[in-house]
Amino acid sequence: MEDHKQRKQEVLEAFLNRHATKEFDPKKKVAHEDMEFILETGRLSPSSFGFEPWRFLVIQNSALREKIKHTAWGAYGKLPDASHFVIILARSKKDTTYDSAYLEDHFTNFKKLPADFKANYLQRIEEFQKVDFQLLENDRRLHDWASKQTYIALANMMTSAAIIGIDSCPIEGFSYEKMNQLLAEEGLLEDGSFHISVMVAFGYRAKEPKEKTRRPAEDIIKWIE
Amino acid sequence: MEDHKQRKQEVLEAFLNRHATKEFDPKKKVAHEDMEFILETGRLSPSSFGFEPWRFLVIQNSALREKIKHTAWGAYGKLPDASHFVIILARSKKDTTYDSAYLEDHFTNFKKLPADFKANYLQRIEEFQKVDFQLLENDRRLHDWASKQTYIALANMMTSAAIIGIDSCPIEGFSYEKMNQLLAEEGLLEDGSFHISVMVAFGYRAKEPKEKTRRPAEDIIKWIE
Repeated sequence: MEDHKQRKQEVLEAFLNRHATKEFDPKKKVAHEDMEFILETGRLSPSSFGFEPWRFLVIQNSALREKIKHTAWGAYGKLPDASHFVIILARSKKDTTYDSAYLEDHFTNFKKLPADFKANYLQRIEEFQKVDFQLLENDRRLHDWASKQTYIALANMMTSAAIIGIDSCPIEGFSYEKMNQLLAEEGLLEDGSFHISVMVAFGYRAKEPKEKTRRPAEDIIKWIE
Repeated sequence: MEDHKQRKQEVLEAFLNRHATKEFDPKKKVAHEDMEFILETGRLSPSSFGFEPWRFLVIQNSALREKIKHTAWGAYGKLPDASHFVIILARSKKDTTYDSAYLEDHFTNFKKLPADFKANYLQRIEEFQKVDFQLLENDRRLHDWASKQTYIALANMMTSAAIIGIDSCPIEGFSYEKMNQLLAEEGLLEDGSFHISVMVAFGYRAKEPKEKTRRPAEDIIKWIE
């Protein structure tokens, strides 16, 4: 029981301590095994239908960091000082429609679904994409849906980092088009299988942040009893 | 150092233990203070520009659960047995455009931004919405963007639950239109300020899940050095 309370306390402290780090200490680097731990919690994240529609690019190359810095305004102040810089890609329409070769392979060879179960499952996905969320209306809508899943991995990586005292900054401040163009030129979108979703920098804070502000619980949480 | 390793071990175990719980034990309920802890980690989650474009409805009312069960196919097997059932709403276009009354109020009264800083900040948001991500092209695109942020809160709630041994199941299996209609009829969308984003059930597993499968790390994580 004490253990249970202590765990909650530690997690809450991590959430209260986490903030979007504006400036990283250039002298402090995240240990390689800590970074592997953070990425592993991203990999183990859940996703809709078990698609795992993501890829994590860890950009440590300084020439590429320099290009990103000048393409993504939101990354400008964090590069080059961030210890590790991750670009989260989401799978594009090519790999996420119910009848894509990627999903056929994914469910057969990775998820190892029995053939009849797989057929039913793909049918359900077809209905979900066509009817429930009308994702097939345009490519962007399907991509936004895959992108949503990557925010689960994003959140988990930031939270697991915070729990072991590592700071982070999620970054949406970039032109979607320009970043896709840069990543395509660098050969990182695997022939149209991926688009950029979001970025996240990891490291250690250079200074203490302002006090955390959040809307009050009674505004955010409503119990319907 | 031992403490650091142990924390990582505990977090990894929580990620390995977490699964989309198909069937909840109807006799086991989540303690109220544990549920408050889970919701609090959702509330403390980060969001783009600090918008906090979310609301968490905790649906404990059995008549409403019954209606949801018959509207959302993905919720059917989890209701009524889930201990707690949360619907995550995302703020709609009305409250998320750069010139909305909600954001003006949010940045003035909750974030307490100084007037000149706020003006610059809103200008940056305008450019982000108009140019960078072209979110103003249609209502759905802006909603999908707000919805992405709610997946951060979703992930954090599932992860914090898993860390204290509580199971969960994220649910996207519903008709977006029908669920919005039901929630509007129940007066839960606050006059068009919110749309449904995603749902998540909490409780304790009725049986052990199948072994977790994930694509291998070398397929998901690419180091660019």
